[in-house]
Parts: sequence; structure tokens; C-alpha cells
Amino acid sequence: MVSLPAPPQCHLNLHKIRQRQLEYFPCGPIEDASATKFIRNMAMKGVIASAVRTVASSGSSASSTTFTRHLHASAGSKKIVGVFYKANEYAELNPNFLGCEERALGIKDWLESQGHKYIVTDDKEGPDCELDKHIPDLHVLISTPFHPAYVTAERIKKAKNLQLLLTAGIGSDHIDLKAAAAAGLTVAEVTGSNVVSVAEDELMRILILVRNFVPGYTQIVNGEWKVAGIAHRAYDLEGKTVGTVGAGRIGKLLLQRLKPFNCHLLYHDRVKIDPELEQQIGAKFEEDLDAMLPKCDVIVINTPLTEKTRGLFDKERIAKCKKGVLIVNNARGAIMDTQAVVDASSSGHIAGYSGDVWNPQPAPKDHPWRYMPNHAMTPHISGTTIDAQLRYAAGVKDMLDRYFKGEDFPAQNYIVKDGKIASQYQ
Amino acid sequence: MVSLPAPPQCHLNLHKIRQRQLEYFPCGPIEDASATKFIRNMAMKGVIASAVRTVASSGSSASSTTFTRHLHASAGSKKIVGVFYKANEYAELNPNFLGCEERALGIKDWLESQGHKYIVTDDKEGPDCELDKHIPDLHVLISTPFHPAYVTAERIKKAKNLQLLLTAGIGSDHIDLKAAAAAGLTVAEVTGSNVVSVAEDELMRILILVRNFVPGYTQIVNGEWKVAGIAHRAYDLEGKTVGTVGAGRIGKLLLQRLKPFNCHLLYHDRVKIDPELEQQIGAKFEEDLDAMLPKCDVIVINTPLTEKTRGLFDKERIAKCKKGVLIVNNARGAIMDTQAVVDASSSGHIAGYSGDVWNPQPAPKDHPWRYMPNHAMTPHISGTTIDAQLRYAAGVKDMLDRYFKGEDFPAQNYIVKDGKIASQYQ
Repeated sequence: MVSLPAPPQCHLNLHKIRQRQLEYFPCGPIEDASATKFIRNMAMKGVIASAVRTVASSGSSASSTTFTRHLHASAGSKKIVGVFYKANEYAELNPNFLGCEERALGIKDWLESQGHKYIVTDDKEGPDCELDKHIPDLHVLISTPFHPAYVTAERIKKAKNLQLLLTAGIGSDHIDLKAAAAAGLTVAEVTGSNVVSVAEDELMRILILVRNFVPGYTQIVNGEWKVAGIAHRAYDLEGKTVGTVGAGRIGKLLLQRLKPFNCHLLYHDRVKIDPELEQQIGAKFEEDLDAMLPKCDVIVINTPLTEKTRGLFDKERIAKCKKGVLIVNNARGAIMDTQAVVDASSSGHIAGYSGDVWNPQPAPKDHPWRYMPNHAMTPHISGTTIDAQLRYAAGVKDMLDRYFKGEDFPAQNYIVKDGKIASQYQ
Repeated sequence: MVSLPAPPQCHLNLHKIRQRQLEYFPCGPIEDASATKFIRNMAMKGVIASAVRTVASSGSSASSTTFTRHLHASAGSKKIVGVFYKANEYAELNPNFLGCEERALGIKDWLESQGHKYIVTDDKEGPDCELDKHIPDLHVLISTPFHPAYVTAERIKKAKNLQLLLTAGIGSDHIDLKAAAAAGLTVAEVTGSNVVSVAEDELMRILILVRNFVPGYTQIVNGEWKVAGIAHRAYDLEGKTVGTVGAGRIGKLLLQRLKPFNCHLLYHDRVKIDPELEQQIGAKFEEDLDAMLPKCDVIVINTPLTEKTRGLFDKERIAKCKKGVLIVNNARGAIMDTQAVVDASSSGHIAGYSGDVWNPQPAPKDHPWRYMPNHAMTPHISGTTIDAQLRYAAGVKDMLDRYFKGEDFPAQNYIVKDGKIASQYQ
């Protein structure tokens, strides 16, 4: 159970819109979706029993799992650098807000008590950035997809002591994985830590587009009331065809949540879903992506960013989609050709586009997706809910603990190990 | 199958926000959720077999149902008045946009071909409004909850020829039902026509509040990028407690759609849900509303507006809710004490409020809900999707057809009949 503080009374002044946002905490105590349950579930699968200690603070209990492999551990103090988004005035508003620079996953005291050095920054770009100062002698670099430290081949070359790259969350495409593999580095994520968070967010975005929510909200804050301006292009989701490009952990959770909406559900992936689950969800496999696209009223992108998926939705592929298609993309911005999305949104071929991923991040002020018609975009947020932060903070702490002890990580967390890149990134 | 026109290229200029909205039609042809299926489903239940004709345009086929009661029918031409929201520039943008004043449910030619007079207006308020000119001699008044013609006891007194009040949609609280019953009028809705539409919209609003979508969108259109400003109060829906006040047609559909989100689901109603359905959904009955409220992270209002529910959520009842509660209300604005919602949103007791219903409608420019903190409000829209419009237009045509023929309506459509008010409005 997580106790919540009383809400402060300060107001945010959001420009150009009369919506005010107060700083307090909905949803009361976090219960079932907590990090404790997440870690417990993984432990029950026999994967990371010792991680429970990182949450339950019972560090003296012995791990029930035996690890024989001594991967990265070497004696002595480590220099660990964490790159996170800065919270500024928001940092003190929620004690569970672990994912920001100011709280830095809540592991500073723990690391320092073991003699390690923990440098935290949000300054990751440009010739004199804080991150680059530490590249030559850091051992571990922690970053998130929400404010990614781009780990290029050049940075890897300069990082002579670097052993381990940890992603607090899911998605390690900010790292040059080939260069990491060639340099013998280990790259790992907190697999599963925010898949529910992202799937829920995708369903929200599908509904926001289908129901034409944004112009309705905009009318209200602008003092208007024109039902027709919304209704003439608002639809039910029921009966529509929704296709997901990728049906991995997140795609499956989305399909399960879509089931009661009585849609036609399609999915494209390299492999079919387990037949029992497929039947339970009622989704139909589409081997050929280009054959699926013209059938879909709504397309959701749920594939990692790899060399194969970069620019997958270019002008030609978007043209294959149904006229008036709605697209949700919480996967990665670079899967889309930026200008092709703008052009198709302007022509009306894409009737609505919503997502939280951009290329690059943070999105510059002049990024055209901010200003294209019929979008419902946000900053990269879907995987960094408070619930998700608690889970990925616990997951990172667990992996650091194992790293210091020379123990293996949970197998599904590895993105690069022993010079090999995980299959989903190939 | 509904054919869709090519999208025009005109742009809307929405003030104060750089989001543009193009006019075209997502979601392609409307299939399963169409009016045809809706009417067919009702017909299969043995309720309105003849209604299929109103959609299938096979008016010559005989009805398989025999009606003996001669309720309202009287010989000769009828004067029918329809009050709908005006579409203006949006009217021509979608051929299925039947619910606007300009299309007036698509029944004008049909009514006039039978010798009836059909007056259509959106002008319903003030001393010289168009509606009041026709009150003295109209026989039938059609209105919608989205742009309600308020049928007061005074108007009923003046309407000497009035026999029938039809609501194109669900919710007839804009009519003084006691006065209508006393005057021997019949009031009927198109029950079921937009329950799916509203339930889907409620789930969207729950997610919008839990995920803190609006400030994220606002940042993007304002050229900002502050993940922390969203993340510090964004949560997963999983594991939270959601309670619905009312579990009628819409409440049940919402609970069914919430099932895969792994929430704790509670409901309060006068009667328990059928045990089999209750077990299937996994929702727990709460006999005492005030005992349920403190348990809920999210509260959804799904009760009609009656004398008992008017002002149900006043200052005292809102104080019984959990601090930081999120409230979704697509039912009726007057169920809430307007100022109590503003005060609780300002203090932070309510952490987010979203809905599409106001008191009165249209909401005036200075309605305080437009400007309170952490809202996600829209004009009244959830029940008037294009799919819903097709269904309630078909339902109204069906009831008019029966009225002219002296046939009964589908039993569940009656709100006032033979001087009696339907149980849900008592």
C-alpha cells in the first residue's frame, strides 16, 4: 500500500488554453498493479525471486534461485549514470514519482551505501552535455525511452569502462545495438514492466480518434457548443475493423481489452498467437501486412523499432490503408515516415493519428506532427505511469543487484548478451 | 453498407489552438453496428418486426406482428415538429449525418408523401422562438437529448393538439413527465439506440482521466515537452476500483467492457444484475451508495435524471468520495450540484471530471465546468455518433409509422403511457 500526501493548492498556468491542472493524486493507493505484484509474478515464474527483496526491503533473505554464470561482475566501486526526464516543480508532488531525475528510481542511497557512485542527469545532448562528461569512465548507463540517452557507436567507442546498458522501461532502440554487441556490452530492459500501461493507453487513443474527442474538448475550453462539429465524424468502435501490426506482449493485451467491443480484430506478426489464446480473443491472423491494411478502420502499431521496421509506414504503405484510416502508434515514431504521415493527414487519407512516440524525443517545437490536422498526440508518456515507474524502478534495482553479485538477469530482459541481439530486434 | 463520399479539402479554423480538423469520414462503411442490425435485433425479439421496413425500404411487406390497440391514431394530416441541433457547414460532409436539423432524421420526404406537415428547427428558447410558434397546433414533437426542446408544463398547457412526444435517443428528462402524464400524452424514446455509443464513450473518459491525457495533448499543441507534468499523476487503470452508480443498459455494457482491465468493479442500483451476468462480469453489488463511494478510485454515473437523482451528488455526497476521485458523467448534468463539482475540483477532492452532459444545454459560455481544473468535458455528444444517429432515426420513423397506423410501440420505448410514468423515471 502506498500512502498519498494531501494535495497542495498550487495551480499550473498552461498557456493558450483555459484548462488548469491541479497537482494531486487520483486513484488512491496503488494495489494490485503495484511493483510488488509485478515482481512477485515474475518470481513465481521462477525468474527473479530475489527481486522481491528490492521492493520488500528484506535484503537479508537468501535468494531461492541459484545462478552459476558470472557475467559482468567485477570487484570494487562502479560508476553508474542515470539519464531521466527532469520533474522540476512536479518532483515533490508524488512520493511514488520514481522515474524523474530528482528521484532517479529511488536507488541513490542504496547504491551509495554499497560504495558505488551514482551520477544523475537529464542533460544528454550537445557537445558539452553532462552525459558526455561521464561517458569515458562510467560502468553502467541507465536510461528510459521517455527521455532517451542516445547511445551511438561513437559514444560506445569512447566509453572504455562501459559494461552494462539498462533501459528503465521497454524499448532499447536508442542504443546502437550492433555497436553494443560488437563491443561486448550487455543491454537489458525491464521486460513486461509497462506493457499493461501501454496497452491501456492504446485503447484510450483508439476511442479518442473514433469518437472525435479532441475537437469536442477544444470547443468547451474555447467557450463554444457545436455538437455537429463533432458528431458528423464521430463513430462507435463496435463493428469496426481494428488491426494490430505486431502482436507481442502489448499487442496481445490490447486485443484482449478490445474483445468486448465487438470489433473485427486482425493481427499481423512474424508468428501466430497461441491457438487457444487466439480463439479466446477472436483475432484473425494476417500473414501479409499489405493485405491486412486495406481492411482496417483502425491500425495500431505494436512492433519494436528495428532496421526492418524503420520507416515501415512510408508514403506507399500508408496509401495501401483504407481512406479515412485511424492510426495509433505508441511503439516508436521512426516506424513512420514523418512527412508521409503529415501529408496523408492533410489530404484526409489518414483521418486521425494518435500516439506518444516521436522522432526524435523530445520533439522539437517545430515538429510537424504537433500541427497536422486531426491528431491526438502527447509527449512520450504511455509507459511511464506511476504504476509503471514503480515496476521498472524495482526491475532496474533487481538487475543492478544481480550485476554486482555476478548473477544472471531474468532471461527475457536481455536485449544484447554475449554479442547476440535479441530476436525481436533482429 | 453505407457509401462514403470523397473528403472535401476545407479546413476548420479552431480558435486558440493549433489543431486543425479536416472534414472527412473515418471508419469506412458502417457494418455490424448499423441501424439495420439494431432494428433486426429488436425485431428478432418479437418487438418491432415492422420496423425493418423503415430501413429496408420494403414498405409493402406485411407486418408479421398483430396489434389490436388503437392508441393515438386519428385520421388526417398531422403537424410534426422536430427540434435538432444545426449542422451548418458540417451538414453536407457526411450523408449519414441524419441527426442534424438539416437532415432531420431523413424522414421529411416520407412524412410529406403521406400528407403530413414536418416543421424542423433548432430555435427552441426565448419568447419568440420558432418552436413556440408551433406549440399551439402541433400533434407530435420530436427532440433529442443533445439539443433538447424543454417541454415544460406551460408548453404542454398551450399545446392543445399535442399527442405524442418522441425522443430521438435516450433520456426524456427534458420533458415534464408528470405534466405529460396528466395531460394524457404519450412519451417514447428509442430505447437501446445509443447505449453502446455511450458505454464506449464512458470507458474512453475513464482512461482519459486515469492516464492524464488532456495536459499531454495541451503540451503538444502549445509546443511544449514536459513528461513529468503528465507522469506525476498518470496511473494504470489496472488494479483500481471502478464503481457505477446505476447498472442499467449502459452501466452493464460499461462493466462488460471494463472486465479485461482487471479492475475491482462495483455497482449500485435499485436491483441486482442477473446472477449469471454478474458473475461473468465479476462486479460486486453495493446496496448502499454511500458505502460504495469511499471505495472507488473512479465513479461513473449511469442513472436517469429523476426527482430522486436530481442533485444526488451534492457537497455532502461528493465529500463521501475518496480524496482524488475521478468522476465520469455521461448521464445528466443536473445529477450533480454544479458548484459542488467546481469546488471539489478546485480543492483537489475531485482529481478529474469528464462528461458530456450539462445543465442546461447548450452550456452557456460562462458555465463554470468549462474552466474548472482537471476536466475533460465535451458538448453532449456520446449518444449521437453516426452509428447511433442511424439507429435512432430508424427507431423514430418506426414509431411514427405505428402512430399513424394506430399500432403500439415497442414496449420498452414507452416513458409515459396511459397516464403512467415508466418505472426508471419514478
